[in-house]
Amino acid sequence: MSQLTHFDAKGNARMVDITQKADTSRAAEVRGEVVMSPQTLELIEKGGMAKGDVLGVARVAGIMAAKSTPNLIPMAHPIMITGVNINFKILPPDKIEIQGIVKTDGKTGVEMEALTAVSVAALTIYDMCKAVDKAMEIQNIRLVKKSGGKSGDFVREGEKPWEE
Amino acid sequence: MSQLTHFDAKGNARMVDITQKADTSRAAEVRGEVVMSPQTLELIEKGGMAKGDVLGVARVAGIMAAKSTPNLIPMAHPIMITGVNINFKILPPDKIEIQGIVKTDGKTGVEMEALTAVSVAALTIYDMCKAVDKAMEIQNIRLVKKSGGKSGDFVREGEKPWEE
Amino acid sequence: MSQLTHFDAKGNARMVDITQKADTSRAAEVRGEVVMSPQTLELIEKGGMAKGDVLGVARVAGIMAAKSTPNLIPMAHPIMITGVNINFKILPPDKIEIQGIVKTDGKTGVEMEALTAVSVAALTIYDMCKAVDKAMEIQNIRLVKKSGGKSGDFVREGEKPWEE
Amino acid sequence: MSQLTHFDAKGNARMVDITQKADTSRAAEVRGEVVMSPQTLELIEKGGMAKGDVLGVARVAGIMAAKSTPNLIPMAHPIMITGVNINFKILPPDKIEIQGIVKTDGKTGVEMEALTAVSVAALTIYDMCKAVDKAMEIQNIRLVKKSGGKSGDFVREGEKPWEE
Amino acid sequence: MSQLTHFDAKGNARMVDITQKADTSRAAEVRGEVVMSPQTLELIEKGGMAKGDVLGVARVAGIMAAKSTPNLIPMAHPIMITGVNINFKILPPDKIEIQGIVKTDGKTGVEMEALTAVSVAALTIYDMCKAVDKAMEIQNIRLVKKSGGKSGDFVREGEKPWEE
Amino acid sequence: MSQLTHFDAKGNARMVDITQKADTSRAAEVRGEVVMSPQTLELIEKGGMAKGDVLGVARVAGIMAAKSTPNLIPMAHPIMITGVNINFKILPPDKIEIQGIVKTDGKTGVEMEALTAVSVAALTIYDMCKAVDKAMEIQNIRLVKKSGGKSGDFVREGEKPWEE
Repeated sequence: MSQLTHFDAKGNARMVDITQKADTSRAAEVRGEVVMSPQTLELIEKGGMAKGDVLGVARVAGIMAAKSTPNLIPMAHPIMITGVNINFKILPPDKIEIQGIVKTDGKTGVEMEALTAVSVAALTIYDMCKAVDKAMEIQNIRLVKKSGGKSGDFVREGEKPWEE
Repeated sequence: MSQLTHFDAKGNARMVDITQKADTSRAAEVRGEVVMSPQTLELIEKGGMAKGDVLGVARVAGIMAAKSTPNLIPMAHPIMITGVNINFKILPPDKIEIQGIVKTDGKTGVEMEALTAVSVAALTIYDMCKAVDKAMEIQNIRLVKKSGGKSGDFVREGEKPWEE
Repeated sequence: MSQLTHFDAKGNARMVDITQKADTSRAAEVRGEVVMSPQTLELIEKGGMAKGDVLGVARVAGIMAAKSTPNLIPMAHPIMITGVNINFKILPPDKIEIQGIVKTDGKTGVEMEALTAVSVAALTIYDMCKAVDKAMEIQNIRLVKKSGGKSGDFVREGEKPWEE
Repeated sequence: MSQLTHFDAKGNARMVDITQKADTSRAAEVRGEVVMSPQTLELIEKGGMAKGDVLGVARVAGIMAAKSTPNLIPMAHPIMITGVNINFKILPPDKIEIQGIVKTDGKTGVEMEALTAVSVAALTIYDMCKAVDKAMEIQNIRLVKKSGGKSGDFVREGEKPWEE
Repeated sequence: MSQLTHFDAKGNARMVDITQKADTSRAAEVRGEVVMSPQTLELIEKGGMAKGDVLGVARVAGIMAAKSTPNLIPMAHPIMITGVNINFKILPPDKIEIQGIVKTDGKTGVEMEALTAVSVAALTIYDMCKAVDKAMEIQNIRLVKKSGGKSGDFVREGEKPWEE
Repeated sequence: MSQLTHFDAKGNARMVDITQKADTSRAAEVRGEVVMSPQTLELIEKGGMAKGDVLGVARVAGIMAAKSTPNLIPMAHPIMITGVNINFKILPPDKIEIQGIVKTDGKTGVEMEALTAVSVAALTIYDMCKAVDKAMEIQNIRLVKKSGGKSGDFVREGEKPWEE
């Protein structure tokens, strides 16, 4: 039967006990999008070439956020991240796609770390462009793939490989 | 002419100088959604009644995240938040809508604080339900309204009032 | 001979070297109390039932604080917590008892994590009720039990089992 | 009528709106105790003279913790602390008394900052002595005095002045 | 008479009371250097052009570190930074010079924020190049200029203007 | 061929993947200096004896900063520090030398932790003395020794052993 494991038998929130789980290699891939006006996308694109690197700052923010996950998500276990990559794809006329991959060798998965990294990278893009475009939207943050751990691998249906 | 103000004339990222701006009352309202399977929504709904309060934990996470915004978003100014509300609407069969309202009396706006609060509340819902539903999606995080400050008020087109 | 291990031979504070210690399963149980007026206790009790869940917020605060322990306690080692439970007992007319249990699989114990979790849960109860009762007291924070590690188990004399 | 202001009319936790409150000078004094074996107290006392300054480390921890209060206490407002003092009194045969005074010029009080400072100073004393005395207790953390703000001054009954 | 104000009359460390000080516009400029092998400097220079932007990452790290200053420096007051700029000068054959400028409108100066920003930018350069050059040195971190506040302006003797 | 490993083949910053590296015992020793006026050095020296322990506070700050390293340095991996020592040498007429030793049993080295610890200890000395001497300089922060890990040991040329 399905259960929300973050609660005990009385319904009280808890950090689930993973003491006895073994350390295994794990990875998670998350994707999401920032949708904006074509003018804003153009400004970001030009900046990446010449001056004002929005995506460079957003990448740093996403990587650092992955490390802050247990301080943000109440029931998340602290975990020793062993690698983070954040990639961006500019999709004219109005979209930036974000990919975050997080790895660990530990007792629990890194889905939350990858979701947090992509969310904070998206928020940083918003922050750096909000002076020209307040109507930007963060869309479609979702887990695309996960490997390692007892619960087995997960691959989201209908996702295409990330090509660069 | 439109400009990304978070860069100087040479294109280097900076925290924009707001030293001379006056303190004014400001507010920002952000909304977003978590889309999930109907079974997961049902589990959350039942928990809210009897045992296992997913939304109560997500609300605390969102409020605390609003205070962490300047540690997550590189060019965001530290700001003294004076109030935060996080509300949820359960929309069967498969959606939870989140509203975050943040207030301040300061030199700069609180859009980033409200966006961060709603994003982390959404991530927390994901975290607490991921054991039963890894395919949940975070959708449609957007600024709905903003007031105060020199740049004037912003109201996103086509948004209906939040009714409870 | 007894020694304060957090100092070197010259009396300088240090983080004790535990590099060579083995990872073992460890747990610590801490208890403490918040004493208040009967009227305040009644407000909390009613809230728990219907609206305004003081103890739910305090539980989240305690669990998150366990993860912040090495940032608060100068000589505490960082440690990978593998589980946290915070429980409350309402003891009319004027007392709430708090129990915190923290687990790890690591090189050092989690007494400080459990003590910090219970202290911050108690502080949060104070915070949420201080508008009606400034005279509340935090009492009797103490280690009740500890297991694992080379120094062996500890059971505090005279403690009764926690019954729910 | 008494109310827990950290909840809205529906009983949902919130950070109370203080946008319209004026900045005023405020102070809070908190006291608490760490009770231990006479042997432990003696070790601390000797350390203060010659080598191994437990109370010096605890003082730094308490001052830093006052600044972390809004990150620990979910509904606490961020606030610009303008001064912190932590004092200790060694009370043979078995007790250390701690006094924390926190000041601000702001929209809300600093009771939580002073309570957190004293709690973390007490936890640090525990941490540095736990190798020799696991049965230490933290007792009697309470607000002794508070001034400033609309709700007026508070002086706890029966408290004697702190003499050094 | 000269005094270390961070101690009280008994010699106990404290956060100095600034409650009664007025908010004024303040700024601080700090400079420092990272000295390395000519080969390392060349790698950084090429990266800035084409791929691998060491200085872009170091700039983000420095700006974020300015905001973390009160969490790192025990007796530093929390302060609302209103602007940060980090600039770099590549000085062949073997040196990068760093300039940090921090501003505020507050009760105390921002020297520590600027010193921390430059130090962390330097540490980040070290981190990103340490795989090829472990012998790099951080040199000459010093306050160059400070304005605002009751103690008056400070200009370090013998410093030339920063030219770009 | 030399490479800046913190960038991928396209030049994008990343946290390097260390998932497959084995845990090994590692240590790093860093040294640095604070140069000041002879009067300031004298004040610190007297304080250490009688009242106002600048170096005691700086030691605590350095130890705590070692634990904050992954939050400050963007591409640094989180790591479980297993020991920290911070030592000071007063070198009349105008210099304090700082030594930081950090240990771990992990997948990556602790050079950055030791460099951060010494830098923050130096910044804290500046902070506590800046009321009497704004012209102090932080000099010569460098890695002196490192052991453990696949890349082998490093000993900086020309360094003498630290004698106390």
